[in-house]
Amino acid sequence: MTEKGDCRAGHVDVALIHYPVYNKNQEIIGSAVTNLDIHDIARAGRTFGIRNFYIVTPYQDQQRLVGEIVGHWQDGYGARYNADRKEALASVVICDDLQSLYALATADGPRPLVAATSARQQARTITFSAMRERIEQGSRVLLLFGTGWGLAEEALTGVDLMLPPIGGQGDYRHLSVRSAVAIVLDRLLGIG
Amino acid sequence: MTEKGDCRAGHVDVALIHYPVYNKNQEIIGSAVTNLDIHDIARAGRTFGIRNFYIVTPYQDQQRLVGEIVGHWQDGYGARYNADRKEALASVVICDDLQSLYALATADGPRPLVAATSARQQARTITFSAMRERIEQGSRVLLLFGTGWGLAEEALTGVDLMLPPIGGQGDYRHLSVRSAVAIVLDRLLGIG
Repeated sequence: MTEKGDCRAGHVDVALIHYPVYNKNQEIIGSAVTNLDIHDIARAGRTFGIRNFYIVTPYQDQQRLVGEIVGHWQDGYGARYNADRKEALASVVICDDLQSLYALATADGPRPLVAATSARQQARTITFSAMRERIEQGSRVLLLFGTGWGLAEEALTGVDLMLPPIGGQGDYRHLSVRSAVAIVLDRLLGIG
Repeated sequence: MTEKGDCRAGHVDVALIHYPVYNKNQEIIGSAVTNLDIHDIARAGRTFGIRNFYIVTPYQDQQRLVGEIVGHWQDGYGARYNADRKEALASVVICDDLQSLYALATADGPRPLVAATSARQQARTITFSAMRERIEQGSRVLLLFGTGWGLAEEALTGVDLMLPPIGGQGDYRHLSVRSAVAIVLDRLLGIG
């Protein structure tokens, strides 16, 4: 776990947002942190070279839980048991809300390009290949992912660009956020 | 849950193998089924249009567990709570071992091309784009994914082709199997 990032140019950060997100009935809620989200996204992040993995939740007990999980793998038994996991979880940064997220993300350099994914088609959409090109040209990018049934509309005010919904031939769009993050990072940063 | 698939040509099946796989010390073990593997892979499978999602485990108690989880979302409260999840989990087929897997996969048509992924570089490797082309040309493909620390060497005897390790710039190769499946399906069947 780090307090804040360094100031390299051309990198990607990921933020997993637990508030404000929608529930199944399109009501705005704060979702609970899921243990496997932390692990899977940290591992995918480390695989594709992201810098910071922000976990955004306003709830103190949830923040404490994240701290305990990360601590176990950073300093506790987990660190000795699985060094790969320790390495992945080093990217985790806990964060209260979107405001603090943007403050952290601009603390050490210019404002990153903020992009979000959505299972719904949105305005301001950029293609994956155009975004990949921007990253290759040195843009700093902060990717927001919503838990629950997706980012609430009000969370999109700070977003510059939307990435298109991910899918195949059909119109089923119900990936887990873990799968969505993995695919987005692969599309933007994957090789082979 | 279905007993076996239909006989359309040009489709992809996914098999999640719990035995024989390696543990951390390269010993062959049978791994426990993980609830979120079932959900995440079924949802990714449905998103990218796979036909069957085989869950391969020799253990009766694990098979029962999978049956109960799928049953909850197919016929129980879950089916009413979340119809999207019901739809995704309809692809699940429980299977004892690799032998029964291959028997099921050839029950209704010609033998599929069997491909596996590995975090280790292997011989008989096909690129993702070449495999994608084969699928587009109508090949039936069965993708094997190992849980734990990956498919044991002996599980690779029935495999025709290996897909390359997934990664970015660095050499960290420790994605969760959920993330790996999502990325492989996107690379082979994704649009956009």
